[in-house]
Amino acid sequence: MLENYDSLGKNQANYVALSPLSFLNRAERLHGARTAIIYGDLRRNWAELCDRIRAVASGLKAKGIGKGDTVTVLSPNTPELFELQFALPLSGAVINTLNTRLEAETIAYILDHADSKMVIADRELTPLLAQVFQMLGRSIPVIEVVDPNATNDITCPATLNAEPYATLLEAETNHTDFGLPDDEWDAISLNYTSGTSGRPKGVVYHHRGAYLMALGTVAGWQVPHYPVYLSVVPMFHCNGWGHPWVMAMVGATTVFTRTPAPNLLLAAIREHGVTHLGAAPVVLQMLAEAEGEDETKFDPPINVLTAGAPPPPSVLERTRAMGFEVMQVYGLTETYGHIAKCLWQDAWLSEAPSEQARLQAQQGIAFPMVEAVAVFDRETGKEVHRDSTEQGEIAIRGNTVMKGYYKDPDATAEAFKDGWFWSGDGAVVAPDGYMQIRDRLKDVIISGGENISSVEVEAVLYRHPAVQAAAIVAKPDEKWGEVPCAFVELRPEAEASEAEIIRFCREHLAGFKAPKSVVFSELPKTSTGKIQKFQLRETAKTMSN
Amino acid sequence: MLENYDSLGKNQANYVALSPLSFLNRAERLHGARTAIIYGDLRRNWAELCDRIRAVASGLKAKGIGKGDTVTVLSPNTPELFELQFALPLSGAVINTLNTRLEAETIAYILDHADSKMVIADRELTPLLAQVFQMLGRSIPVIEVVDPNATNDITCPATLNAEPYATLLEAETNHTDFGLPDDEWDAISLNYTSGTSGRPKGVVYHHRGAYLMALGTVAGWQVPHYPVYLSVVPMFHCNGWGHPWVMAMVGATTVFTRTPAPNLLLAAIREHGVTHLGAAPVVLQMLAEAEGEDETKFDPPINVLTAGAPPPPSVLERTRAMGFEVMQVYGLTETYGHIAKCLWQDAWLSEAPSEQARLQAQQGIAFPMVEAVAVFDRETGKEVHRDSTEQGEIAIRGNTVMKGYYKDPDATAEAFKDGWFWSGDGAVVAPDGYMQIRDRLKDVIISGGENISSVEVEAVLYRHPAVQAAAIVAKPDEKWGEVPCAFVELRPEAEASEAEIIRFCREHLAGFKAPKSVVFSELPKTSTGKIQKFQLRETAKTMSN
Repeated sequence: MLENYDSLGKNQANYVALSPLSFLNRAERLHGARTAIIYGDLRRNWAELCDRIRAVASGLKAKGIGKGDTVTVLSPNTPELFELQFALPLSGAVINTLNTRLEAETIAYILDHADSKMVIADRELTPLLAQVFQMLGRSIPVIEVVDPNATNDITCPATLNAEPYATLLEAETNHTDFGLPDDEWDAISLNYTSGTSGRPKGVVYHHRGAYLMALGTVAGWQVPHYPVYLSVVPMFHCNGWGHPWVMAMVGATTVFTRTPAPNLLLAAIREHGVTHLGAAPVVLQMLAEAEGEDETKFDPPINVLTAGAPPPPSVLERTRAMGFEVMQVYGLTETYGHIAKCLWQDAWLSEAPSEQARLQAQQGIAFPMVEAVAVFDRETGKEVHRDSTEQGEIAIRGNTVMKGYYKDPDATAEAFKDGWFWSGDGAVVAPDGYMQIRDRLKDVIISGGENISSVEVEAVLYRHPAVQAAAIVAKPDEKWGEVPCAFVELRPEAEASEAEIIRFCREHLAGFKAPKSVVFSELPKTSTGKIQKFQLRETAKTMSN
Repeated sequence: MLENYDSLGKNQANYVALSPLSFLNRAERLHGARTAIIYGDLRRNWAELCDRIRAVASGLKAKGIGKGDTVTVLSPNTPELFELQFALPLSGAVINTLNTRLEAETIAYILDHADSKMVIADRELTPLLAQVFQMLGRSIPVIEVVDPNATNDITCPATLNAEPYATLLEAETNHTDFGLPDDEWDAISLNYTSGTSGRPKGVVYHHRGAYLMALGTVAGWQVPHYPVYLSVVPMFHCNGWGHPWVMAMVGATTVFTRTPAPNLLLAAIREHGVTHLGAAPVVLQMLAEAEGEDETKFDPPINVLTAGAPPPPSVLERTRAMGFEVMQVYGLTETYGHIAKCLWQDAWLSEAPSEQARLQAQQGIAFPMVEAVAVFDRETGKEVHRDSTEQGEIAIRGNTVMKGYYKDPDATAEAFKDGWFWSGDGAVVAPDGYMQIRDRLKDVIISGGENISSVEVEAVLYRHPAVQAAAIVAKPDEKWGEVPCAFVELRPEAEASEAEIIRFCREHLAGFKAPKSVVFSELPKTSTGKIQKFQLRETAKTMSN
């Protein structure tokens, strides 16, 4: 009887707020003696790390940081940034990690918009911060982290009045369990989208989503206990795709290199027996290029997640040959990172390697913690057919979708229209339900009434041996409306002519999809390495036909 | 700023009630064409199964079943029971699956106590149901399932006025997504504990817990996509340890054999390429005994969860030799099944096989979805030391702890004292944090001020080649207060004397732990196969010293 069932209420034993802080209790209880951190000569086990996290949280509170306060961190991937992923939420604060490659003006905008009450900065970035405060016309309290593995001799500008990170560690702590938030819907982090145009938007995550992201990642990536994880994904992207929280759950060892230089990463993989890592396709490409031809293949294979852009099939082929088991995942800052994965299907084994690579470059199917990922025709409101042809917009629904945009109710309402989060990504769906991104919707080229996917043409360009990087944008055309225009960055020493590039594309694509003109130049990129297509579009507009 | 963060609310895109019904949406969308069910000649894919579940839920509603209504199911493991694990919650009902080996009187008690509005019964069990209704003095609407693979020629008593299950399937359905509960705290199932004494208690689960149990099981057991799962765990135990829900999430094929006869199970494993199963230690023992010596070892190994009683090390040794990768898990009906697992540690590889088996027989560490499993000295309220010696009671906290006992506020309050769920199981904790059960607290024997674990002595008895089953209980003793008394069931044809058994125990145990007397007899068991120690205690009391 309903009333008898409903009378059974929540209590401390049977209801616990979902929060990644739980995983610290788990780590301390079950993995305390295991190595948590490897960085140069530094080793810390989970018990030591948990103690530090507790101390830093107390130190933050002693400095007046409390529930709902934004604290900004400006740091490369270091053990301090890793522990702050826990210590800031533990103090009640919301962690706001900034892309270290942002220009001062944008940082100033974010600090102001985010109502940031404190900045924790790696010493290397303190001169930038001084510029930022000058632009901002005011200061914010600064905590400075000095990384003994940093090779520069920068000093922290005196104007910042920075206090050392060590002062946070001196706080008195109790040694009870890690406390969880009152409400699992409480904010845990604030991540500004890099945005290729316009002001960045502040994406707010909550504890419930962060917990489910971590548990779902372990389930969906099949992460075993005690992996050795190489910290490559910048922790300023979606809190490192939620991986720091995952690592606490499974008692992992995380290996740091400060910078993602390929030689450092490859050396760390070999020295510490790395089993797992996540990285953008461009990093995988660099690793494949840096790896000597006579190096032995990694065996057992290294489990790699890749995301951020559709990986060129050639990169998948080459990294597989190295012993990387690459799973492409798809997601956005607004979805805590990955919410779909290109799960390998054994039936693909009978395909040629290049076809396998193409299949692996699909965005795939929903992660288990996601309620639904669907592709809709926005005009009819219906899901597209599973014919690999009809294109629609990817929409997502689930508990790992952001709370909303900070102080931006209009953008929030727009993103959540009709009960879905709208990605802005155009995709088709294969008969087996696997999605493949065709384009950011605004990147579609419409030529003579036909849609041309810039991603598809770019994939062909990347297969040309002389091409290092490539982008396709629309160029206005009197006859066709738009035609594809290629911007190509050649490999050092390599040569290719416009005619040759166009011919190569025509060999592999329907004629109307091949670029009508090719521009050879270095490509403009955002601070996160995304090619700034809007700039190329401007250039294309001014080109004569 | 807190108010800015708090102003971001829940909506359909970013908040979804946690419920295992979500996994049906996933299964239909992503695994539709994959085989879901294998039973004799029957094959159903996930799309067909989802259609049936939708129809059955509509059929139930058409019969007046709605939110918060208890519906009882009395059935062995069949595809119908599997689909009812979804269809009943989908209709809003609470699924109450009964142990098929219960006696009529207990079933009558449960139907009445549970406010059951309908009984869905396998034809084989309908004569029992007629008895039950006679005892109850009233009838409840009955739906009869006719299993074409049942070999008996039983007819359903006319007094039941049973309607065929097929009528449920004829209901009209819509083909929209599977709806989720309004509130993830809503009840999903009601499982009565078998209880070796007293009336059974009704344990209520909610959707949130069932969802987290499934996701946590995938994470903690590392279940891949598309396993082939053999349905052995009775679905009347903790909803089959939540495995039906797991299987929808990962697009599994579930293989049914109706009865757990070892020859049927072994044949199904070989014929269908089973990759995963769960079973009580006694079933594993039967499989090991039925498996021919010249059979090839299963390779790749079969992933097995075992629970229900601490597995005798000998069973672990023998099943490992067969190619079973056995992980022992620990839990209770009140915790949705497993909440701790004996995770294998590579360091154990250097131990002798018998020591490895002993280590594997520990209850281990918490599953990832569990907030905490701790062992407390109930007098001091402190956790016991990690010395493998100090004994306390296992307590559990987390989202996979029951809502409470149905219509039993006193027992609920008692179980949830001090913010923990108290298991009633006594255990010690090893230096590495692994728990090992010593006893149900009431099964501890206190002899001359020393605690003797009946489980420990029983483990030794099981190593004696003539012993089929054994139990140790306390016998009153003038000098020592209590002494251990052994009840032993010998293998067919095997012989052993009392003196020999005692000598064997003294060779492997401290003298005070060896039984002082041995009774050879068949052991009294509950309908679920648990040895009824309370009866043995009664017998021991009446024995002369």
